[in-house]
Amino acid sequence: MEFSSKLLENAVYEVSQLPGIGKRTALRLVLHLLKQPLERTEHLSNALLKLKGEVNFCKQCHNISDTELCEICANPKRDESLVCVVEDIRDVMAIENTSQYNGLYHVLGGKISPMEGIGPQDLNIVSLVNRVKEGTVKELIFALSSTMEGDTTNFYIYRQLEGLEVTTSTIARGISVGDELEYADEVTLGRSILNRVPFESSMKTT
Amino acid sequence: MEFSSKLLENAVYEVSQLPGIGKRTALRLVLHLLKQPLERTEHLSNALLKLKGEVNFCKQCHNISDTELCEICANPKRDESLVCVVEDIRDVMAIENTSQYNGLYHVLGGKISPMEGIGPQDLNIVSLVNRVKEGTVKELIFALSSTMEGDTTNFYIYRQLEGLEVTTSTIARGISVGDELEYADEVTLGRSILNRVPFESSMKTT
Ligand SMILES: [Zn+2]
Ligand SMILES: [Zn+2]
Repeated sequence: MEFSSKLLENAVYEVSQLPGIGKRTALRLVLHLLKQPLERTEHLSNALLKLKGEVNFCKQCHNISDTELCEICANPKRDESLVCVVEDIRDVMAIENTSQYNGLYHVLGGKISPMEGIGPQDLNIVSLVNRVKEGTVKELIFALSSTMEGDTTNFYIYRQLEGLEVTTSTIARGISVGDELEYADEVTLGRSILNRVPFESSMKTT
Repeated sequence: MEFSSKLLENAVYEVSQLPGIGKRTALRLVLHLLKQPLERTEHLSNALLKLKGEVNFCKQCHNISDTELCEICANPKRDESLVCVVEDIRDVMAIENTSQYNGLYHVLGGKISPMEGIGPQDLNIVSLVNRVKEGTVKELIFALSSTMEGDTTNFYIYRQLEGLEVTTSTIARGISVGDELEYADEVTLGRSILNRVPFESSMKTT
């Protein structure tokens, strides 16, 4: 793609660095912004910079939160003996959306993936084990996507929990294997939380 | 969609204001930026703001350009008697990409569309007619998309040119009616420029 302006080329390049956005889409988005009042671009830039600069993660569950402890962790009506382990905050949003779950969460921030160079130390696993060691948590529900990386991560955490008094379960899959949580419909996802199965038995079937 | 953070919600809202970007995609893009170093967000914001603040349009053809006169208009090897009338700069890029066209351009900046409230006065039509009046231009090639808005715009310009000594043609369509120029393959698009037909005869066939 040959650009008539370096400024334009640079803007298109930066936008096309976003995942799933090709050069053509980037050009369309940039030309759209060019036609809009300057405020649109300013609001967009400011919102992104402000989030990046001021974002805070809940000190307990690592959910994105504007307060030290997120609303879920701080809610006395939630069952703190139950912790659902998810990959990222989109999964928290998806499960909250079902209104079927009253426990807390633990956001790992990803899955173990040797291919992408993501090891256990890159994820919020130590803090999860420490949460369990504190003794309040009675059950961990693994809700990672059922991919090889998800299974590896579940199993790694499971091994770290050896000797600790905690039950582990995985969400029941009405959803087909390999599907991402966030795209599941609310009913299926809600039911799969209610019908969770012990993690040990889930390993036997795979 | 319920967000755990106002900062996050605001960033997602701003990104989802872009055309073709839904809330889910916006959230995915925002979370991606959150995982990247701050520089990525800064580079993105700066590139967009710099473009918006410093963008310049060629004083002759309205193409985006970092110089007063764009590279195409300023190139003495281009045939200045030939002007191709296009909707936006993506069409200039698409036609340049074919390497089949050696004339100049005139970027209208849109099409007449009563539905979207875009009238002739919102487009670079007066400057086009003035260009023709100067006497150097011998032929105008209409290369707008063959939609009702494109046809309306062509015809409006055609009427403005009455009494002036200029030939008008439209690009030959190997491309199916209604297709956007920028998505046409290079061979078809290049050929359609070479095989352009007089505008009057194109009107008879529609
Ligand atoms: Zn929390
Ligand atoms: Zn120019």
